[in-house]
Amino acid sequence: MKTQREKAEEFRALHHGKHMLILPNAWDVPSARIFEDQGFPAVATSSAALMVSLGYPDGESIHFYEFLSAVRRISRVIGMPLSVDAVGGFGYTPAEVATSINHIIESGAVGVNIEDFEHATQKLYPLDKQIEKLTAVKKVGDLLGVPFVINARTDALRYAQGDEETRLGEAIRRAKAFRDSGVDCVYPMGLVKADQIAKFTKELNFPVNVMVRKGLPTIQELEKLGVSRVSFGPSASYAAMGLLKRASKEILEKGTYAQLTDGAISFDELNSLAVAKKA
Amino acid sequence: MKTQREKAEEFRALHHGKHMLILPNAWDVPSARIFEDQGFPAVATSSAALMVSLGYPDGESIHFYEFLSAVRRISRVIGMPLSVDAVGGFGYTPAEVATSINHIIESGAVGVNIEDFEHATQKLYPLDKQIEKLTAVKKVGDLLGVPFVINARTDALRYAQGDEETRLGEAIRRAKAFRDSGVDCVYPMGLVKADQIAKFTKELNFPVNVMVRKGLPTIQELEKLGVSRVSFGPSASYAAMGLLKRASKEILEKGTYAQLTDGAISFDELNSLAVAKKA
Repeated sequence: MKTQREKAEEFRALHHGKHMLILPNAWDVPSARIFEDQGFPAVATSSAALMVSLGYPDGESIHFYEFLSAVRRISRVIGMPLSVDAVGGFGYTPAEVATSINHIIESGAVGVNIEDFEHATQKLYPLDKQIEKLTAVKKVGDLLGVPFVINARTDALRYAQGDEETRLGEAIRRAKAFRDSGVDCVYPMGLVKADQIAKFTKELNFPVNVMVRKGLPTIQELEKLGVSRVSFGPSASYAAMGLLKRASKEILEKGTYAQLTDGAISFDELNSLAVAKKA
Repeated sequence: MKTQREKAEEFRALHHGKHMLILPNAWDVPSARIFEDQGFPAVATSSAALMVSLGYPDGESIHFYEFLSAVRRISRVIGMPLSVDAVGGFGYTPAEVATSINHIIESGAVGVNIEDFEHATQKLYPLDKQIEKLTAVKKVGDLLGVPFVINARTDALRYAQGDEETRLGEAIRRAKAFRDSGVDCVYPMGLVKADQIAKFTKELNFPVNVMVRKGLPTIQELEKLGVSRVSFGPSASYAAMGLLKRASKEILEKGTYAQLTDGAISFDELNSLAVAKKA
């Protein structure tokens, strides 16, 4: 059984391997465990998928301890590194955010995502404030002796002022500042186009995370573009809900069950997802 | 806004309508809410899918209050009747089971499934003990003033002694005893074949619940066979996990994302599933 420190180092190394890290995002125990069974080297949580699964919209309206409980349920049964999307860090001051991240790491995570978008006001945090947050979070790792991976997300591509090129420039400016503050990876939300990805990775010369969505270049293309990590975001949850819609339509309109029964897993396999993977 | 009593009466009436009740089983907030959006008249929980989503195998190894929290999360955002699979009733004595069911109804359910199979020993409960349980549960409805629907499940088709026909006979004997004790519906787990379904509904002359699985006759055929209610069981969860497996294989082997992005719902739609449906 690996220590948390070893898992953190293993997770960091995955950002510097020969191949890009393909990181699936889960929201509950079985979604995380099935990704482990499929052979991914690590798993992350999706904030939107996890929050909604518990009855809260994406953001920080969930009570922090309910959020932590969900993280603990997953980390209890997952053997591989687990990274947690911590939204804006669950706090207003850098000290509050550091405390929240401390709890998340103590709940078993070895990586966190922290974004510069404030859901409550729908605005970007000022860059200097965000750097203060990230610096405080970095110190938590030193204090705990767990060198966890910090993935610093910027929402500037969507929420900065100006036209697309200006927003891309602001995203790059923010990502460089995050990089220089000592984080491990930067995550420009909404980066999808090949030319913009190429510009980003070239300017940063540092691990960059992109998210799966329609139109994203293939894994092979992303590797050539210099991307270090591709995460699912909430896409697996979107896809699962899409399947439930199609299955519902089929049973209500046609009276048949093909989408519920074809390609489905068995009772025994579902049950096996509640517990740790057998070595 | 309907009272819980009104929802219970509405749910009971669905077992005696012109058409069979098609009852989807959910395990968390968005799976329940998406079924509501698709136009089903009620929703139930699947014990296996719900337990596994929280990191427990099917059965009663989950702490009862963690189970109740999951029921409350769903009932908080669901407007239509909610039925809860209560496994064996979370208790050894009829009084303990009655207390547990009281809590489940107070958490917002207007229906419960109670089975005669003891997960701990992997054996059927003696029939007289099961009738005592069901009678105690029935009284909870009278005390609370919520005439909730009791769906009494028997696992005799799988776990009774003897050959298939003997086990079918035992399932019918048990279902008749449940019916005569005052429950609202009987649920012979494993009843799939058209001739056995026909025999069951004819002998019972009472609402019978069957579960979706490969080989089950279509909705139109089930109606002709006299079935009153067909539930998904854990099948939607099996199907969702099957999709995650296929999507994982695709991204790991081919480097593409079609199964994550095609037919998926949007961020806004996912987020809308965290809150009550707009009227």
